[in-house]
Amino acid sequence: MNKLKLSRQLEQFFLEDIGERDLTSDLLFQNDQQGEIVFLAKADGIFCGIDLIQHGFSILDPNAQPSLFVRDGTRIRSGQKLATVKGNISDLLKGERVILNLIQHMSGIATKTHQAVQLLNSDHTRICDTRKTTPGLRMFEKYAVRAGGGKNHRFGLYDAVLIKDNHIDFAGSITEAVKQIRSEIGHMVKVEVETETKEQVLEAVAAQADVIMFDNQTPEKIKELIELVPDHIVTEASGGIQLEDLPFFRNTGVDYISLGCLTHSVEALDISVKVHL
Amino acid sequence: MNKLKLSRQLEQFFLEDIGERDLTSDLLFQNDQQGEIVFLAKADGIFCGIDLIQHGFSILDPNAQPSLFVRDGTRIRSGQKLATVKGNISDLLKGERVILNLIQHMSGIATKTHQAVQLLNSDHTRICDTRKTTPGLRMFEKYAVRAGGGKNHRFGLYDAVLIKDNHIDFAGSITEAVKQIRSEIGHMVKVEVETETKEQVLEAVAAQADVIMFDNQTPEKIKELIELVPDHIVTEASGGIQLEDLPFFRNTGVDYISLGCLTHSVEALDISVKVHL
Amino acid sequence: MNKLKLSRQLEQFFLEDIGERDLTSDLLFQNDQQGEIVFLAKADGIFCGIDLIQHGFSILDPNAQPSLFVRDGTRIRSGQKLATVKGNISDLLKGERVILNLIQHMSGIATKTHQAVQLLNSDHTRICDTRKTTPGLRMFEKYAVRAGGGKNHRFGLYDAVLIKDNHIDFAGSITEAVKQIRSEIGHMVKVEVETETKEQVLEAVAAQADVIMFDNQTPEKIKELIELVPDHIVTEASGGIQLEDLPFFRNTGVDYISLGCLTHSVEALDISVKVHL
Amino acid sequence: MNKLKLSRQLEQFFLEDIGERDLTSDLLFQNDQQGEIVFLAKADGIFCGIDLIQHGFSILDPNAQPSLFVRDGTRIRSGQKLATVKGNISDLLKGERVILNLIQHMSGIATKTHQAVQLLNSDHTRICDTRKTTPGLRMFEKYAVRAGGGKNHRFGLYDAVLIKDNHIDFAGSITEAVKQIRSEIGHMVKVEVETETKEQVLEAVAAQADVIMFDNQTPEKIKELIELVPDHIVTEASGGIQLEDLPFFRNTGVDYISLGCLTHSVEALDISVKVHL
Amino acid sequence: MNKLKLSRQLEQFFLEDIGERDLTSDLLFQNDQQGEIVFLAKADGIFCGIDLIQHGFSILDPNAQPSLFVRDGTRIRSGQKLATVKGNISDLLKGERVILNLIQHMSGIATKTHQAVQLLNSDHTRICDTRKTTPGLRMFEKYAVRAGGGKNHRFGLYDAVLIKDNHIDFAGSITEAVKQIRSEIGHMVKVEVETETKEQVLEAVAAQADVIMFDNQTPEKIKELIELVPDHIVTEASGGIQLEDLPFFRNTGVDYISLGCLTHSVEALDISVKVHL
Amino acid sequence: MNKLKLSRQLEQFFLEDIGERDLTSDLLFQNDQQGEIVFLAKADGIFCGIDLIQHGFSILDPNAQPSLFVRDGTRIRSGQKLATVKGNISDLLKGERVILNLIQHMSGIATKTHQAVQLLNSDHTRICDTRKTTPGLRMFEKYAVRAGGGKNHRFGLYDAVLIKDNHIDFAGSITEAVKQIRSEIGHMVKVEVETETKEQVLEAVAAQADVIMFDNQTPEKIKELIELVPDHIVTEASGGIQLEDLPFFRNTGVDYISLGCLTHSVEALDISVKVHL
Repeated sequence: MNKLKLSRQLEQFFLEDIGERDLTSDLLFQNDQQGEIVFLAKADGIFCGIDLIQHGFSILDPNAQPSLFVRDGTRIRSGQKLATVKGNISDLLKGERVILNLIQHMSGIATKTHQAVQLLNSDHTRICDTRKTTPGLRMFEKYAVRAGGGKNHRFGLYDAVLIKDNHIDFAGSITEAVKQIRSEIGHMVKVEVETETKEQVLEAVAAQADVIMFDNQTPEKIKELIELVPDHIVTEASGGIQLEDLPFFRNTGVDYISLGCLTHSVEALDISVKVHL
Repeated sequence: MNKLKLSRQLEQFFLEDIGERDLTSDLLFQNDQQGEIVFLAKADGIFCGIDLIQHGFSILDPNAQPSLFVRDGTRIRSGQKLATVKGNISDLLKGERVILNLIQHMSGIATKTHQAVQLLNSDHTRICDTRKTTPGLRMFEKYAVRAGGGKNHRFGLYDAVLIKDNHIDFAGSITEAVKQIRSEIGHMVKVEVETETKEQVLEAVAAQADVIMFDNQTPEKIKELIELVPDHIVTEASGGIQLEDLPFFRNTGVDYISLGCLTHSVEALDISVKVHL
Repeated sequence: MNKLKLSRQLEQFFLEDIGERDLTSDLLFQNDQQGEIVFLAKADGIFCGIDLIQHGFSILDPNAQPSLFVRDGTRIRSGQKLATVKGNISDLLKGERVILNLIQHMSGIATKTHQAVQLLNSDHTRICDTRKTTPGLRMFEKYAVRAGGGKNHRFGLYDAVLIKDNHIDFAGSITEAVKQIRSEIGHMVKVEVETETKEQVLEAVAAQADVIMFDNQTPEKIKELIELVPDHIVTEASGGIQLEDLPFFRNTGVDYISLGCLTHSVEALDISVKVHL
Repeated sequence: MNKLKLSRQLEQFFLEDIGERDLTSDLLFQNDQQGEIVFLAKADGIFCGIDLIQHGFSILDPNAQPSLFVRDGTRIRSGQKLATVKGNISDLLKGERVILNLIQHMSGIATKTHQAVQLLNSDHTRICDTRKTTPGLRMFEKYAVRAGGGKNHRFGLYDAVLIKDNHIDFAGSITEAVKQIRSEIGHMVKVEVETETKEQVLEAVAAQADVIMFDNQTPEKIKELIELVPDHIVTEASGGIQLEDLPFFRNTGVDYISLGCLTHSVEALDISVKVHL
Repeated sequence: MNKLKLSRQLEQFFLEDIGERDLTSDLLFQNDQQGEIVFLAKADGIFCGIDLIQHGFSILDPNAQPSLFVRDGTRIRSGQKLATVKGNISDLLKGERVILNLIQHMSGIATKTHQAVQLLNSDHTRICDTRKTTPGLRMFEKYAVRAGGGKNHRFGLYDAVLIKDNHIDFAGSITEAVKQIRSEIGHMVKVEVETETKEQVLEAVAAQADVIMFDNQTPEKIKELIELVPDHIVTEASGGIQLEDLPFFRNTGVDYISLGCLTHSVEALDISVKVHL
Repeated sequence: MNKLKLSRQLEQFFLEDIGERDLTSDLLFQNDQQGEIVFLAKADGIFCGIDLIQHGFSILDPNAQPSLFVRDGTRIRSGQKLATVKGNISDLLKGERVILNLIQHMSGIATKTHQAVQLLNSDHTRICDTRKTTPGLRMFEKYAVRAGGGKNHRFGLYDAVLIKDNHIDFAGSITEAVKQIRSEIGHMVKVEVETETKEQVLEAVAAQADVIMFDNQTPEKIKELIELVPDHIVTEASGGIQLEDLPFFRNTGVDYISLGCLTHSVEALDISVKVHL
């Protein structure tokens, strides 16, 4: 994650929660009261978000001193101490909820991604994300997918081409759509084509797409379709695939499986905080 | 929701996804190509987010024409047509993903809240949310809780007092903490005290807290504790309560049950989009 | 005050005054010339704004060294040295005017609030502010009211309910308005009702408002009306009350008197600055 | 005023007051309820701020229809109807307080400036403002000074040079300071020198300052000093001058009198609002 | 270009130039004075920036009416009328300079790019840009390169990988660097490797780079090196190539030639404005 | 330059280039890998931008340690070492391109300005800039003109008056335009009038303009016109003057020559960077 962007976004999140002032802590704690906050896992999973603990509190208290005991992407167990931060107690309490919400969310994504990778259990096929992320949090969520062992699909509409059914309809054909796109874009941009039939796969191959997506296909169908695609073209299975479906995709030979559920429906990983005065 | 703030946040979300340009649609569609986007439910649930469809696309295409067929908080069924928007096809496609991500997320929250209300099935006790929201989306998520039939707890650290264990420890006692707070705040702010024991409940009552929270208590224990609280003080059960626990709280007499899971672990409600050129 | 928000607002204020550069100091002082700035009271009053001296200059010169001799809310006398800041002389001069404007304004509010409290001279009744604040400066002005011994009314439209005459007219009655509001809001929000007649007071009591405002009533009338209100409901007198009217409200028994003039018409407290090279 | 900047600042002010939502009006009014807001003078004075009524409400309700009955800088009398705005009643109520606070403040400045001009009662000497403005509101306040018949001194540190005592001390002399400045700045920037003695005035004249300020001088002293200054150099009296002092400056022959009190201590002009459903 | 981002950036540019107000036009023109502004070419070249004329003035005057006579990327001749905009004359004059500066700059880039394409005169090899753009204007400048017939290299550090000499040094070898990158990135990102020797080219080919850059090589050397690269790997010549060098690269067979000078040293295309009252 | 504004703008520029993350360096360098970046001149010219090297990298790496070997405005020679910065290698690489683009651009402007001053070779007449700057970079570019030995014309529409032909047409005459302006503006603002004929020059003199511009006049014509202007009125030649024309203006006696080409058509000065691990 871009640290500068991370800081600017954390500031916005703190302002959302604190507003004009923390009515409780600002009135009960003396200005210079020091304390310590301890992050503890309350469930097993894959941790993600250590940069937020390391840099986040210092936005509120420049003298905050974090001690970090885990790295992103590592397995944590319920009860495990993850990190401590010493500093001004009122500032630590002001930042606690925002940072906890984020690292629970990110760890939830990393854990789910890791589960997907485990369920798939493939040396060849990889799990990747989609643009079905929480608005405003894409950088955080795509990072968490990587921490969980997944790969990132494109970051937005601006860094890669994905030609979907509507585009094909309007252009007239896959051939025409790819040709039109290629005539405009540069050499650093990949072009993916969404396909729904054998004919479309063949057309996408002929059009020299960089990536071919099999949209809403069964594992069996994918095994057939993949035979039509030469090795140097990357393949991707997509369309409402759930975690429990993954074992059936294990031997399809597809290169990537994209899962919207990694980011659009996240179970937060339970992490708690203890505060010592 | 504050419409002005809604517009400003939507702009940020669109910029996150579109960046410098939509590499695909900007290259394939002619500038003035019109089209229509249709929102369809793909699952049963409670809908939330109609303002985003109504106002969101007009940020990208000032001439976008929305037609809305549902209201927030109403039950929708799989297959139901929710809304259509006519406008510049390239702009509609640019906005589709952001708006879909948000309304699926908000409808997921509304649906979960509604389930909680149904499971609790109480004329007296109400479901409310917490500050365990997605950073940057609190306004959206608190709105969705209301759409689902829940109530909002405080919006942030700035609009109500919640005296927790650490505050009590530092102040020395509930009595002292409430006294200190009351001597500082104005008459438009409510004061809630978190309690863990019978003694603390009695002390909070004596200190004239506006709201008393029973933290991490069983329904049976709450029934006992609630006897100690006079009618004009509001009571709240809190602490890791899950949806399946709610029936056991039905007859406790507690006024509010706050559920972090309404917002920190959201299953998006499946809503899809069809585009007509 | 939220320190993070304070810093962001001070940056905006500095940018407003400095623009592209300080045409005078940037050209006359060498880059590393050190100096000292001394804040001196030029009138008697209540001081407010020490955080601005402490944190403000460090935005322009990270090595600025403040020494503070007063606290917010304390009485200062003409000629008294309030604080000194050592640092880069050109940066000190760039920040001086903005910080002086703010602390004179805030000290003016604190002084006026203190005068109000003195004039009222009541053990029971308290002075509070309104939303008649300077746009952009609400956090600063509400803080200054507290420093002067006053209380804060709601911060904005978002943190408490105030049902005014137009709302009552539209809803049909106080009873109906309170009922409608109560059915929507959560348990952490207070509801105040504006009343103009004895009948309205009785209706507001029956509707169980948290706070009842007597709008534009004489002290005598308030004494009568207050008899109708049970102890657990807070009362507030409002409506164009001036400082010189306050003694007449001393024995009315009202809980709060809100004064728009604390913030909408502020006489700056005279504070000056001396600079030593 | 720059309309674009005006809109951006008004948006910030509305967000400060409304936050996530207007808890009262949003719950009591139906979405499409129309109404009218009427602005009425409650005191005599000089009006300022018509652009805020004209453009401000349309930020909240794009269909708001203002009717304006006064212009900036005109005398208004208590009871006079100033403007009406028709539109969505909930949006009108959301914007009312911010706009009222601003136009009362601006009209207060315009009225005070007009009083200064009247008290001075001079064909030759003009009243001008200083940088002692409310942080964040300089554009609004400088505009109001002009509406009241005053002139603007420099807008900030960036648009004109003002060589003060500290600058002179550091440079060694007025001669040296002006020389150094002139060697750096362009031909579109005016240079003013602050003087405290006859010797300094003579030195500033010799240094060819564009403007010479007499700091903290009596009217009598100014009459003497002004004899030393050739006609093509502008003169300015400054330093804690109050409105009641102005008649004594009438015949000094000084070109400008700058008054910090125009903007640092403003009595809001009483303007009220009536709302019709 | 993303129209939403375009509007936000134009607003910033207008604020930079107008500040608090246009001291000249605001004082000389009556508020409702209408007029027309005419854009005229004063030199031959390739035009770029029609969206700025179409949308830019409406930010200042929502009723501005543009008439457009050219499209981006078309050849214009000195004297040719490019567009007219009718609207509030004071608003047109406020926007004129910013829009003119931008379209002259963009047309300068488009013209230079077109010259490069003409000089190269190749059916196979294409001209592309670099990250040597003006900070803050990348979206505008990359658009202008496309308008001139060039292609875009990556937009920033975030949308493609470019492994340079320092990266290779640190990783130990091209093989190791590509391997490490490939193990982390997803399938929608292209990987380019900078090479300086025949050995490096062979290593990059073996490492299966998507794009191989020949850094600072003569056309002759490139002809040799290109023999080592299979067809499906894209090649790029880079490193201080000037327009006059391009003919020598015509028959090298390289796919892309990237030119920093397209954007880092731009001769504005002369376009002027006439205003009619 | 205002350091606070400089920091805020650099942050925006870094965000433009880095986006969510640096796909290359973030993946290849270990988090704590230190290194050094060396800035080297690759051409002769006038350097400008040392503040960017000094402060810029610390935005990305707060522990960055710059060593600076040149000052702004000094002549540098190809091969000369300008500065080094030690710090986190990944952060140095992230910031390198933005800072290099800016200092090459600024040094290009300083060099061109210096050439203009040399070509003019006059003790009396000075070179100045215009508002033909790159949108978003005016502060940087006007600074660079000063570094190159030039002067700044007005910064924007807000800090000085320039009455052009359209203004004169609308006002009816120069006399009327100046009178109208003078009656509105304060004493710290200079008024310049654009003239095209002898009659207009005489009228501008009579109207007591502070500055008279000769628009599009030959050197010979300027020599004639200047005879009509008294010494205390500043004169300026303007209108498409190129560097090669400057010697012909040497003996015209005009005070300033404004050159749009200093900033609208900039040849970047070649500066390169070497990185040591």
